[in-house]
Amino acid sequence: MKLLDIYARMRKDIAFVERELEESIHTDHAMLEETSLHLLKAGGKRIRPVFVLLAAQFGRYDLQRIKHIAVPLELIHMASLVHDDVIDDADMRRGQLTVKSKWDNRIAMYTGDYIFAKALMVATQLSDPRIHQILSNALVELSIGEMEQVRFFFRTDQTLRHYLLRIKRKTALLIAISCQLGAVAAEAPEDICDRLYAFGYNAGMAFQIRDDILDLTGTEKELGKPPGSDIRQGNLTLPVLYALRDPLVRDELLAEIERIRLVDGQTDVSPFLRIIRNGPYIEAADRLSSRYIDRAIAALSGLPDIRAKRDLIQIAHFLGDRSY
Amino acid sequence: MKLLDIYARMRKDIAFVERELEESIHTDHAMLEETSLHLLKAGGKRIRPVFVLLAAQFGRYDLQRIKHIAVPLELIHMASLVHDDVIDDADMRRGQLTVKSKWDNRIAMYTGDYIFAKALMVATQLSDPRIHQILSNALVELSIGEMEQVRFFFRTDQTLRHYLLRIKRKTALLIAISCQLGAVAAEAPEDICDRLYAFGYNAGMAFQIRDDILDLTGTEKELGKPPGSDIRQGNLTLPVLYALRDPLVRDELLAEIERIRLVDGQTDVSPFLRIIRNGPYIEAADRLSSRYIDRAIAALSGLPDIRAKRDLIQIAHFLGDRSY
Repeated sequence: MKLLDIYARMRKDIAFVERELEESIHTDHAMLEETSLHLLKAGGKRIRPVFVLLAAQFGRYDLQRIKHIAVPLELIHMASLVHDDVIDDADMRRGQLTVKSKWDNRIAMYTGDYIFAKALMVATQLSDPRIHQILSNALVELSIGEMEQVRFFFRTDQTLRHYLLRIKRKTALLIAISCQLGAVAAEAPEDICDRLYAFGYNAGMAFQIRDDILDLTGTEKELGKPPGSDIRQGNLTLPVLYALRDPLVRDELLAEIERIRLVDGQTDVSPFLRIIRNGPYIEAADRLSSRYIDRAIAALSGLPDIRAKRDLIQIAHFLGDRSY
Repeated sequence: MKLLDIYARMRKDIAFVERELEESIHTDHAMLEETSLHLLKAGGKRIRPVFVLLAAQFGRYDLQRIKHIAVPLELIHMASLVHDDVIDDADMRRGQLTVKSKWDNRIAMYTGDYIFAKALMVATQLSDPRIHQILSNALVELSIGEMEQVRFFFRTDQTLRHYLLRIKRKTALLIAISCQLGAVAAEAPEDICDRLYAFGYNAGMAFQIRDDILDLTGTEKELGKPPGSDIRQGNLTLPVLYALRDPLVRDELLAEIERIRLVDGQTDVSPFLRIIRNGPYIEAADRLSSRYIDRAIAALSGLPDIRAKRDLIQIAHFLGDRSY
C-alpha cells in the first residue's frame, strides 16, 4: 500500500513529532496529563502533521521550526475532538472510552481548553505574525463550524450548501492551513503556500465526505464506534441530504429521522441506515468526494515535481477512497 | 468616590474599548452573535481593560495599538466565565441568565471557544512575539486553574497553598498580564513591565479573595446571584479553609460541607454561612487581602509618579475593600 510506504519513509520525522506532541502536553498536573495523554495515545492518522511535513518540503525543510506548526495543528484537532465528544455525548472514539465518558463533561471541557492553550503556546515559538493570524482565524471558523453543527442537528430543511460550509469549517480549513503553514514556516514562496492551501482545502472536503460515508456504511469493528453515530446525534450528512431530495424515499426518511430525533438518538438506527444504503446516495456522495480529490490534485499542478508532491497526490487519493 | 472619578476621566477610552469589544465578536452567525453579545451586554467592571489602559501610560500611549491587548484580555475573561458557568451549572451571572441557562451547555461551550478564538485573532494584530508568548502561557495556566478548581471541589483536606495557587491561576495571572502587556504594547522599559506585572498579580489575588468573601457575606441583591454559590458547587474559599483550621467549629463545619456535597449543593446553605459569618474567618481573610494590596502598591514604588500610578493605587484599594 502506497500510503504505508509514505508513512514508512517519513517515520523518523513522524516519530519526532509524536514525541514533541507528548512533551507539549506535559504538565505537573496529574489529571490533565492523564486526560490529555489518554487522547493522544488513542492514536489517529496524524494526517495534519503529515501534511505539514510534506508541505514544508517545498521550502527550507527544518524540522526544528516546522514542529512548531505540526504539533499545534494536531493539538487543535485533538482539543476540538474532546469538545465534540462533550457535545455529541459520545462514549467511544477510536475504539476507546472518550474523556467525557471516562471522566466527565467538565473535565473534558477543561482538557480541551488546556490542549487549545498548549497548542498556541507551541506556535508562539515562531515569530512570523502571518502564522498566528492564519491560525487564530482558523480557530474562529472552527468554533463557528462546531456551533453550526449543533444548530443544524436534525434540520431536514438544510441545503447542500449548509453541509459543505459546515465541513469546510469543521475539517477542510484545518487541513488547508496544515498544508499552507507547513510551507509558510519553511519560507516557501507565497504562490506555493496558496496552492498548498487549495490542495488541503479540497483534500479536506473529500476526507470529511468520506468520513461521513463511512459512518453510514462501516461496521462497529471498522469504525471503533457503532455506525450511525452521526444520525443519532442529529448530524445530517451528504448521503442523507441526497436521499432527502429523492421523492421515492423522502417521506419514509423524514419519518425515520423524526423518530430518531424524538428519542434523542437512543434507538436502533438500522432502518435509517437501510434506507440510505439501499439507494444511490452513497455513490453520489462518493462522486462528489472524487471531484474534490481531482481539484486537490489539480491545485498542485504548478508545483515543482518533488517527491513530496507525489506523496501528497497519493494521500489525497487515499483520503478520498479509504474504506476505514 | 475615587474609583468613579477614575472611570469618568477614562470614559472616552473605555467607551472606545467597549465599541471595539462589540465589534470584535461580530459575526454573520446570528446565534453566536447573540450569545456573545448577551454576555458582553451583561456588563462588568472591565477591570482588565482599565488596567491595560493605565499600564500603557507608562510607555507610549497609543490606543490603536493598546486596544489589541485590552480587547483580548476582556474576551478571554468572558470566555472563561462562559465555560465556568457550564461547570458550575450556574443559572445567573451579573443578575442575568447565563448562556448555558438561556441556551444550553453545548452552546455555552462553543460560545466560549468562539470568544477565545476571537480574542487571539485580535491579539495577532500585534506582531511582538513576547506578547503572544505571555498570553498563551497565561491561557495554559488559566485552564489548569479551572481544572484544579474542579479537582478540589469539596476537598476539605486542601491547604491554603492549594487555594492561593488556584486563585493565582484563575484570576491573578490574567490581571497581572493585563498590567504587564499594557506596558509591553506601549513599549515601556522592561523593569516597568515587570513591576506592573507584580502589581497586577497582588491586586488580582486581593480581588479574588474579596470576591470569595462577598459570596459568603453578600445578599442576593448585591451579588446578582444567591450567596453561598461557591459552597454549593463545592468551591472551598479562604474563610472556609480558615474555619476548618479552628477546632471550635471544625467538626460542625465538616458535617455541614458533607451534607451539602451529598445533595450536590441543592440545599439551603444558610447553616453553613452562619458558621463562617459568626467566626473571625472573614476578618482573617480580609487581612490577607489587605496584605496583597500593600504588596501591590509596594510594587509600584519605583515607577514614575504619573497620574496613572495614583489611579492604580486607588483601584487596588478599591479591589481590596469593595463591598459589592
